[in-house]
Amino acid sequence: VKLSIIGMGHVGQAIAFAAVIKGLADEMVLVGRRADSATGDAMDLRHASCFSTPVEVRSGTIADTQGSNVVVVTAAASTDFDSCDRRRSGAPNAALFRQLIPPLAKASPAAVFIIVTNPVDALTRLAQHLSGLPPNQVLGTGTLLDTLRLRALLARRVGVHPHDLRIYILGEHGDSQVAVMSSASVGGAPLGIDPLELTALAAEARDAGYAVAKAKGYTSHAIASATMMIVEAIAKDAHVVLPVSTRLSGYCGVSEMWLSVPAIVGRGGVIRTLGINMNEQEIAQFQRSAAAVDGLTLAWLSDPLSGKA
Amino acid sequence: VKLSIIGMGHVGQAIAFAAVIKGLADEMVLVGRRADSATGDAMDLRHASCFSTPVEVRSGTIADTQGSNVVVVTAAASTDFDSCDRRRSGAPNAALFRQLIPPLAKASPAAVFIIVTNPVDALTRLAQHLSGLPPNQVLGTGTLLDTLRLRALLARRVGVHPHDLRIYILGEHGDSQVAVMSSASVGGAPLGIDPLELTALAAEARDAGYAVAKAKGYTSHAIASATMMIVEAIAKDAHVVLPVSTRLSGYCGVSEMWLSVPAIVGRGGVIRTLGINMNEQEIAQFQRSAAAVDGLTLAWLSDPLSGKA
Amino acid sequence: VKLSIIGMGHVGQAIAFAAVIKGLADEMVLVGRRADSATGDAMDLRHASCFSTPVEVRSGTIADTQGSNVVVVTAAASTDFDSCDRRRSGAPNAALFRQLIPPLAKASPAAVFIIVTNPVDALTRLAQHLSGLPPNQVLGTGTLLDTLRLRALLARRVGVHPHDLRIYILGEHGDSQVAVMSSASVGGAPLGIDPLELTALAAEARDAGYAVAKAKGYTSHAIASATMMIVEAIAKDAHVVLPVSTRLSGYCGVSEMWLSVPAIVGRGGVIRTLGINMNEQEIAQFQRSAAAVDGLTLAWLSDPLSGKA
Amino acid sequence: VKLSIIGMGHVGQAIAFAAVIKGLADEMVLVGRRADSATGDAMDLRHASCFSTPVEVRSGTIADTQGSNVVVVTAAASTDFDSCDRRRSGAPNAALFRQLIPPLAKASPAAVFIIVTNPVDALTRLAQHLSGLPPNQVLGTGTLLDTLRLRALLARRVGVHPHDLRIYILGEHGDSQVAVMSSASVGGAPLGIDPLELTALAAEARDAGYAVAKAKGYTSHAIASATMMIVEAIAKDAHVVLPVSTRLSGYCGVSEMWLSVPAIVGRGGVIRTLGINMNEQEIAQFQRSAAAVDGLTLAWLSDPLSGKA
Repeated sequence: VKLSIIGMGHVGQAIAFAAVIKGLADEMVLVGRRADSATGDAMDLRHASCFSTPVEVRSGTIADTQGSNVVVVTAAASTDFDSCDRRRSGAPNAALFRQLIPPLAKASPAAVFIIVTNPVDALTRLAQHLSGLPPNQVLGTGTLLDTLRLRALLARRVGVHPHDLRIYILGEHGDSQVAVMSSASVGGAPLGIDPLELTALAAEARDAGYAVAKAKGYTSHAIASATMMIVEAIAKDAHVVLPVSTRLSGYCGVSEMWLSVPAIVGRGGVIRTLGINMNEQEIAQFQRSAAAVDGLTLAWLSDPLSGKA
Repeated sequence: VKLSIIGMGHVGQAIAFAAVIKGLADEMVLVGRRADSATGDAMDLRHASCFSTPVEVRSGTIADTQGSNVVVVTAAASTDFDSCDRRRSGAPNAALFRQLIPPLAKASPAAVFIIVTNPVDALTRLAQHLSGLPPNQVLGTGTLLDTLRLRALLARRVGVHPHDLRIYILGEHGDSQVAVMSSASVGGAPLGIDPLELTALAAEARDAGYAVAKAKGYTSHAIASATMMIVEAIAKDAHVVLPVSTRLSGYCGVSEMWLSVPAIVGRGGVIRTLGINMNEQEIAQFQRSAAAVDGLTLAWLSDPLSGKA
Repeated sequence: VKLSIIGMGHVGQAIAFAAVIKGLADEMVLVGRRADSATGDAMDLRHASCFSTPVEVRSGTIADTQGSNVVVVTAAASTDFDSCDRRRSGAPNAALFRQLIPPLAKASPAAVFIIVTNPVDALTRLAQHLSGLPPNQVLGTGTLLDTLRLRALLARRVGVHPHDLRIYILGEHGDSQVAVMSSASVGGAPLGIDPLELTALAAEARDAGYAVAKAKGYTSHAIASATMMIVEAIAKDAHVVLPVSTRLSGYCGVSEMWLSVPAIVGRGGVIRTLGINMNEQEIAQFQRSAAAVDGLTLAWLSDPLSGKA
Repeated sequence: VKLSIIGMGHVGQAIAFAAVIKGLADEMVLVGRRADSATGDAMDLRHASCFSTPVEVRSGTIADTQGSNVVVVTAAASTDFDSCDRRRSGAPNAALFRQLIPPLAKASPAAVFIIVTNPVDALTRLAQHLSGLPPNQVLGTGTLLDTLRLRALLARRVGVHPHDLRIYILGEHGDSQVAVMSSASVGGAPLGIDPLELTALAAEARDAGYAVAKAKGYTSHAIASATMMIVEAIAKDAHVVLPVSTRLSGYCGVSEMWLSVPAIVGRGGVIRTLGINMNEQEIAQFQRSAAAVDGLTLAWLSDPLSGKA
């Protein structure tokens, strides 16, 4: 597996380190704004890989990503807002994507693209548009991390392994996200948690990113782990179900939008989405979440030549 | 972790080999009827462990199991029927358990006992009775294997990883088992499979053990893997949800019986059971399954001194 | 990786089970004399794989091995002698190889062939001859297992991990094998063990296979682990150094022979051999070992049409 | 395993993340100068751990490290020089150690202490002195990283897995370090590399840390991986041979000094050192390396009350 990472800030670095430890790639290319820093990371990671499975890690330009199997995009125009106001960073990041995505897609037309940069839903839609690739090949980390954070909180509360908690946060990776409580289960059984408590835990999960960013200035380890979970599903063609940002066609009445829903992920990216049960209130919330993302994205797509997006 | 394996037939051997490959134990004791054969296995496995993590494997008697953390019991009075008619082997195996379980429990009063020998539900109940240990410390592999077989069939049919299929086979590890279809889901969404097709797949899962046994004369690899999944949950205190044979107290109206239901498994064995949703028909089936096992077990428990069980 | 296993006796079964647990293959084909038994193993292993990574395991004929990446040959004409007198089983096994190897090589001309059947050195040479494949693609498990057994004994004696012991047993996988003591080291330092004690440990390692076979009737777990170590080196293109049976060209004065020496193993099989330091006595022993194997093999190769080898 | 990490700069963070991914600890305590940042890291890592094995990660003070099994010390008085001039940071770091080590040792008298802060040899000696713990319980990462870097360079040059290269860099983790070429081997065979080329590679390995630090401003991933290798050896009681900084008693004529030599590492820390073969020139170099470290350390130890070291 050839894995390219575009953007070597805190998140890109953590993803690269996790990939080395887990031995998921044979070859890695790091593309960062600061070439010397990316070169230092590549050397450091090559040394690190000798403690597990040697990996050919090097820094480079977009040309070096040629023929990648997976391209992870974490690049952001500025790191000033990234964890704090995912939406405000939209315009400058959209402009950056206009520069980066077309040559990346041309260099690796068979790759699965994983978009991590925020606002992730809007940027994943934009990235697919700019890439000209089939929609299933371009996905965003979306609410995978929010979902796992909620499962972690519930796991501690219920005393069970997070993998046995089936609850999803869907929609926007942002404030309008929807915790689908009506179909939540633990090992196939009802959760048995008071709805008010569950709502409070979902709010804690939604706000956890802000809390981490407020405390340490950014988030890195958890989003890197979420990204690696997607990379692993692709690398091993594992067909696991993950809530990722993907194109919807008639999902709860939403079409031509990119939002997170449970999707089967394998070698080619998103294989198909799964229609989870939601009650009327959740469906309405999901549609509101779609509208929130839509407002953010439309301008960019209608004006594809504008550097300002 | 000190792991003792009682009974070194096909299943005991496969469990021991899997434990060595997975490096789950620091110390292993193999107790088999034929001392020379167990000694040969211990040597062979000690050599095998050098290819991964060295493990101290030796053969021995019950006295050598002293202080085990996990005791796996696969011993059977005769291997003639074991995979073919799980119930017929009950009486001689019960007699064998009367000899084995009390000294094993005395040697390792803090261990979790995993019963693999068939008929597993009745023998797990008997083993707990004979051991004098708390019920949560004695569990049977039960329908864990049936459940995974069904998930495997469904995984192939639906195109998804088995871990994302939530469907349980509960009740007796035998013909009266119940595939709980009413609450089955894939990644949180409904299965979307025709009930008739699902019934056929459940029947195939139920009969898979017979099919394997008919083809090769016994079953070993899958039941060993199921057992190792339980050992791993205990060794890592993982709190995972597994359908195992455990004591029920008012589960769907069944009490003082040992049958498989979804249970949270960790360091101390079964931490608690989970009340999965079943429809009326499934509840009735489950109760019939309980009655079927009950008939098998009662005689033995009422006549604890009889070698003939 | 597509892995085919030819011969489903104790060793073939253990290799297949280890491959499933370690998740080293995506696809496995089991070819055994008794088709029903191989079918039962395939089902059993497919079920077992659901507890880790699902693998497509099926039984089949040589035609089904088409396009394998690795072919492991454990088939033997009869299991009566296999562990007890490796040489006596030569003639009937050579006859069997004449039937099996040509169609296997035709079905998978790019595969690496790992020969496990005894007498392994002579049969690896024969297999390469019959296959018409480049010598580096056909190797035998040879003294890898003897070497690891000796390291295991020494590890216990010295109190160090077996991986940190550098000592090799080379030459024939049989009584004429040579423990190269003159260049033995522990973590780069001299062993510091009395030569007499070392000789006794080497004899114990050499005879361990007989001891296991005498105790349990055959050997399986350790030889399966040795085989998997080779499969892993090939599957991961790991370039690890393993003593395997390979063609020698001027190694300590031995040419056109197949014997175990330290070899770098990767995707294509044996990449190259390493010239370990031996003293005069060891070189003489090594040459005697070559002569012992040579006598066994020559007849078969000079009379390639004879079923009796 | 309870693992405490003291100092949450780049290195401490990378160690914590690696520990979470590898699942080596059940419980982790992060102690950093900036409490909010450590709290953010703890939250982020707790979320990250849900993608593998849930770990109880929290931030805290020295009091919270109570009863640790392993304590990793990466704390430095200032990060300004840390990778660029390991010796200059000695005095302020020594002062910091006087504050940190005594209460840490009191809180976890049974823990193994792994010192990462530079100058690591002098500070490991100081830490052991301040802790009052047995010398084997206090070790430094020393030349483990230098050694692995050299093996990585050689692995690429020779075309072999780094684990099969036996060459050690010993002595000071600094400019006076000694690459012991006279006993270098690959898979038990001589390296077969021209001494001049080997000297150049050793110089490249020695300077690699500076190169990485110059390029990205610090080093993190490789030193974190080296530290985790030691943690793993302790956690699994693996008895692996690692070049770590440990107390010498008559090693090549050096006593009462802390320098890196090959040591067997297991549950209790350093079990014993191994006397590797060196030629006269290497011994002389090693003794000069000892003298270099000695000059650095003596002042601190003779004036234990001085905050200025």
